[in-house]
Amino acid sequence: MNDNKKEIIYILRKSEGNPVSGQEIGEKLGITRAMVWKYVRALRKEGYDIRSSPKTGYILDSCPDKIDPEMLQGILKTSLIGNDIRYYSELESTNNTAREIAMSVPEGAVVIAETQKKGRGRMGTEWQSAPGGIWISLILHPSIPLENLSKITLVAGIAVTNALRGIGVDARIKWPNDVLVNGKKICGILTEVSAEIGKVDYVVLGIGINVNVKLSGLKDEVRRNSTSIANETGKPIDRTSFLASLLYELEQQYIRFKTRKFAEIVDEWINLSDTIGRNVKVMTPTMLIEGKAVGITEKGALVVLDKNNKKHEIIAGNCRYSD
Amino acid sequence: MNDNKKEIIYILRKSEGNPVSGQEIGEKLGITRAMVWKYVRALRKEGYDIRSSPKTGYILDSCPDKIDPEMLQGILKTSLIGNDIRYYSELESTNNTAREIAMSVPEGAVVIAETQKKGRGRMGTEWQSAPGGIWISLILHPSIPLENLSKITLVAGIAVTNALRGIGVDARIKWPNDVLVNGKKICGILTEVSAEIGKVDYVVLGIGINVNVKLSGLKDEVRRNSTSIANETGKPIDRTSFLASLLYELEQQYIRFKTRKFAEIVDEWINLSDTIGRNVKVMTPTMLIEGKAVGITEKGALVVLDKNNKKHEIIAGNCRYSD
Repeated sequence: MNDNKKEIIYILRKSEGNPVSGQEIGEKLGITRAMVWKYVRALRKEGYDIRSSPKTGYILDSCPDKIDPEMLQGILKTSLIGNDIRYYSELESTNNTAREIAMSVPEGAVVIAETQKKGRGRMGTEWQSAPGGIWISLILHPSIPLENLSKITLVAGIAVTNALRGIGVDARIKWPNDVLVNGKKICGILTEVSAEIGKVDYVVLGIGINVNVKLSGLKDEVRRNSTSIANETGKPIDRTSFLASLLYELEQQYIRFKTRKFAEIVDEWINLSDTIGRNVKVMTPTMLIEGKAVGITEKGALVVLDKNNKKHEIIAGNCRYSD
Repeated sequence: MNDNKKEIIYILRKSEGNPVSGQEIGEKLGITRAMVWKYVRALRKEGYDIRSSPKTGYILDSCPDKIDPEMLQGILKTSLIGNDIRYYSELESTNNTAREIAMSVPEGAVVIAETQKKGRGRMGTEWQSAPGGIWISLILHPSIPLENLSKITLVAGIAVTNALRGIGVDARIKWPNDVLVNGKKICGILTEVSAEIGKVDYVVLGIGINVNVKLSGLKDEVRRNSTSIANETGKPIDRTSFLASLLYELEQQYIRFKTRKFAEIVDEWINLSDTIGRNVKVMTPTMLIEGKAVGITEKGALVVLDKNNKKHEIIAGNCRYSD
């Protein structure tokens, strides 16, 4: 977007609903009122709702629901996460793109897409990524042994849950990688790694959140178990602002992860989760384990006590609640 | 290479040093003696040493030292490993190429290059890959948790050592991923993985063996600690045949790995290795551990007993002998 158009949006935003005259805008930008009017018409075509009255001026009623990468960079309060923002209207998969560039970008780079054509969930499942969501992949270069990979998923779950609770959404983490509201899925996390023994090359943290997504557009079996921020709060929210707070939370959690004992993080995870204490059925690639979820290990594995009082430590699997 | 040229090589090989007349070759192939002579001259240009005498005929003295992928496929006794052979004169890195194709080829595919421009060792180090070596990467899709990745390196070490001993080279495994002869390195193994938690997408097993490599061409600090099969046996060997036996050994070990208890494999590894019982200095990304190597754990970690009798389990690191 050219600078004058950006400036006009900025001026109208700052004015918070009070009309600004074409003359005032023109003087600030050093252009004629006719040019201002030309830009306003162009912005309307791009989806900006700008009211105009010859007597009072222009009012910005609403912006198109797009993530604004420049605004994002402007409002980000982080030092690491989001230092490099790669924004796309559409990708096959943000995780795929992130993996392609992972070794040539600094830690903290974020890939963002408005929609994904082939969004991925865990175990090769499909992840529907319609417009209005946050579909991002964060590139990390953590110095961790491979067996500690699960911890990063837990840490991401805490960050997402904090960001959601920060805007009044009563989110809870469901092991291993979902965030739910009233039992319905609002976010999924996909953690992928590339490594040799003893050295992680990169971790790509894929996070998908239904922000303003039209739930009616989801496939039936998905829709039944899904919700969105718009659905929970009653109205759409500004995704750029929410993304900024999400990235901030991710940075806080990542710093904690690198500097604090993981046992503290486990405690917070358990507080924010609703899995511990529930009766669960966990499907792993090799077996089905039924019982009560009683804790999380140092490595991020779920501890399930079966009906014979035998403890199972499960590092990964599909978890369903059976109570 | 065209079929007639291949046939001529085949006929001369079968003849095992006895001259074959141009007339006999021409009759077998349905071409004139003049054409046979034309093909022989072309083959000489490609490096085939073919003696000719008008009275007796042609004799194949030697083949150029190149891996022959078609001969390889013909002599392979495996059912999985080597089902898909990708042969290149030169690559940046066989591991890189293998990783690019890993998700679109069946398990067991092998990438081979005569030379690598940017061969990689562990931890991002350089691996010199001059002509005359075996520089290959094997693509696997094992159903193992990430923490078991080290086992694959151990299993590969056993396979390489068996293949070398099979041709009379007294090879020993040095933890974690080297094969030595009389303390000098003849082979390095680089195991790389791509995965999400709970599901390994692929493992790429990179194996580099100095077969007929000119040691004088190696950098000084590398050459001092290196050897080759040619150096140990006194003469160059046929790399295609050796590669076939290596792939066979890899398949045997991979099948064992999938079907037998890992404790058996650990026992064999210890028998073939010279690390256990030695005084070692192991450098990990975070610390230096000195002591006696006393064993290998179920996960493939080296157990080192330090001077305070404290046991350390090290999953990855640089191991030097200090005795």
